[in-house]
Amino acid sequence: MVVRTSSSPSTPASAPEVAPARALERLREASPLTQCITNAVVTNFTANALLALGAAPAMCDIPDEAGMFAGIAGGVLVNLGTPTSEQRDAAREAVAVGTPWVLDPVAVGALPVRTALAHELLEARPAIIRGNASEILALAGAGAGGRGVDATDASEDALDAARSLATRTGGTVAVSGETDLIVDATRTARVPGGSALLTKVTGGGCALGAAMAAFAAIAEPFDAALAASAVWAVASERAASGSRGPGSFAVAFLDELAAIQPADLEGRAELA
Amino acid sequence: MVVRTSSSPSTPASAPEVAPARALERLREASPLTQCITNAVVTNFTANALLALGAAPAMCDIPDEAGMFAGIAGGVLVNLGTPTSEQRDAAREAVAVGTPWVLDPVAVGALPVRTALAHELLEARPAIIRGNASEILALAGAGAGGRGVDATDASEDALDAARSLATRTGGTVAVSGETDLIVDATRTARVPGGSALLTKVTGGGCALGAAMAAFAAIAEPFDAALAASAVWAVASERAASGSRGPGSFAVAFLDELAAIQPADLEGRAELA
Amino acid sequence: MVVRTSSSPSTPASAPEVAPARALERLREASPLTQCITNAVVTNFTANALLALGAAPAMCDIPDEAGMFAGIAGGVLVNLGTPTSEQRDAAREAVAVGTPWVLDPVAVGALPVRTALAHELLEARPAIIRGNASEILALAGAGAGGRGVDATDASEDALDAARSLATRTGGTVAVSGETDLIVDATRTARVPGGSALLTKVTGGGCALGAAMAAFAAIAEPFDAALAASAVWAVASERAASGSRGPGSFAVAFLDELAAIQPADLEGRAELA
Repeated sequence: MVVRTSSSPSTPASAPEVAPARALERLREASPLTQCITNAVVTNFTANALLALGAAPAMCDIPDEAGMFAGIAGGVLVNLGTPTSEQRDAAREAVAVGTPWVLDPVAVGALPVRTALAHELLEARPAIIRGNASEILALAGAGAGGRGVDATDASEDALDAARSLATRTGGTVAVSGETDLIVDATRTARVPGGSALLTKVTGGGCALGAAMAAFAAIAEPFDAALAASAVWAVASERAASGSRGPGSFAVAFLDELAAIQPADLEGRAELA
Repeated sequence: MVVRTSSSPSTPASAPEVAPARALERLREASPLTQCITNAVVTNFTANALLALGAAPAMCDIPDEAGMFAGIAGGVLVNLGTPTSEQRDAAREAVAVGTPWVLDPVAVGALPVRTALAHELLEARPAIIRGNASEILALAGAGAGGRGVDATDASEDALDAARSLATRTGGTVAVSGETDLIVDATRTARVPGGSALLTKVTGGGCALGAAMAAFAAIAEPFDAALAASAVWAVASERAASGSRGPGSFAVAFLDELAAIQPADLEGRAELA
Repeated sequence: MVVRTSSSPSTPASAPEVAPARALERLREASPLTQCITNAVVTNFTANALLALGAAPAMCDIPDEAGMFAGIAGGVLVNLGTPTSEQRDAAREAVAVGTPWVLDPVAVGALPVRTALAHELLEARPAIIRGNASEILALAGAGAGGRGVDATDASEDALDAARSLATRTGGTVAVSGETDLIVDATRTARVPGGSALLTKVTGGGCALGAAMAAFAAIAEPFDAALAASAVWAVASERAASGSRGPGSFAVAFLDELAAIQPADLEGRAELA
């Protein structure tokens, strides 16, 4: 797992302001309150992943509470996986507050309710958008969306779409795949590595979006997305090495999230 | 674990069209998109079980999306465990589409909202109905339902009720228990074996219903139900052998679902 | 882990009517039907914890069913972690029935919807209120609530608030923390021990509330709360001893809940 950061043609290469190792230190010191408005499938795994990482998750997702809670949270995740009517209203409240927030547009493109909501929420400028290539392409208007939650495109195919979205929101866009892409208006980082077993556990990507929201409480969006992706890559590789299958992998992944140390991320971040 | 298929008195004994081993091969090749409208308790375990098995789960369960999604899914599960108002409408949409679908009438009989919905949905002719004996008896009008999700009847007691339901829907009825019964209008198969630890993990049966929906995407309903039951029996036996209790069993069960090979099912399917 | 029971100044010290060991025996014999109206994050872990313990969980949480179900359940949990509109109505139905019920006022104080509901539900006199110190202080009107689900106060700081609530409801109040406090109008017990890893698994405390509801089906509220806390302390200590982190701890905890025997609780309950 090597993190490479390359500049876009028009800008010089630059390191992240806060490297992943330092971001992890900060996160563990601050234990940022991280609000998750997320889907019913992954809410347990997401909360456990945040706890293991060192953040303080709170799944506050009902109207008349979500906005107020976003005011005290350090970061907010809005994941559109199972967007009930109440969650949609809660999301609208939460993103209006001004706390850095992450949009995870699960299965956007193919399905009308979440697609309309995702476009509406974009106006509130997510600090980070995290999705697979099909979702990013669809959100940028450049693709039809994947097969539900499955990406049918490679992350590199979504580079232009990610840049376009990032320019529009003024934020960062993270495209998850065999190699993760982290893009803002001018910079591009790639995080290869990680384990394919993460795609065999529901919520591997959704929890990554939540981790980005936690890191966004203590670092700039680009650095937050990079740190979360680096942690995911290292922890998933380690978890995979001792696992017998997806069940034991998911358990080991939580153990590794808790065990990972800033130094484990040090040598792995390289600029291109 | 031996799968025995016996004819009803009026028909000759016959093998399944697609034996469990071949069905598992097909499922792994096709990775069928499997839509689950299921209860909040088991949605995570269900998605992980489908992923481990080789299917592609999608928990699309809100109105104005569920019907559209059912049109691209290969199989659909409707599980009535925690049927919110939005899930009830989503279920109505999804079953109207014509994609093979599985009804899991959790705790039907005792509770009025789900009981009314189950009877309404029956009109849309589920390809497979999966429940415990108490639920099948209640759905067929022959019993009062169990104690919530617990069966208070043995699966064999529900044979006539299962036949009656299968005749009425033109589909297959699977009665889960110490020995699973798989029944259509003329055929009966029994799948003994498996591990009682499955009853100590929430969602063991619910995820079996989801697996039947996945298999229904690539095989006829009777064969789909048989294949899913056979996989469950083998995987649960193997998982039990190395487990210390229900926690480690659930983890091992997911590992075994991923590890199971078609040949593991071969010698275990016998016709009576 | 030693359970110490001390009298309040005005009453003589007294043993619980039913000691934890005997309560666990009774629970295993009766397998009480335990209805949980609980949050989406922990519903799976809660059901699995109850199954492992020997109870029969049922997550019946929709209007027009929840009240009816409470009539056949032995104990009811109302946990306010993610209180959707339908769950709020379901809770109102369920607590009106008269079955012993447990209130878990998650994050009460800080958030208006659940705070209003908690105060409304108090009128129906919960047999047991279980929360962390911040929640108990806030519910008693003596504090502002914690940081979402995190306690920012020590359990001992909530002793007076707990006594005040217990006096008002005529029931028992359990304050979870490094040492658990169990309080009714006149008695106080303390359950030290347990593992801090429980705070790194989402739902550790929520599932404890569910266990109290299960025990309340077969013992008086004070004894039920004491038994559940003692079981949690023993099982979490044992689970922690062989765990590599929070993921493997959660799995081991379920295994230990299933393995724990009444005798394991015997020497640990001492009166002060």
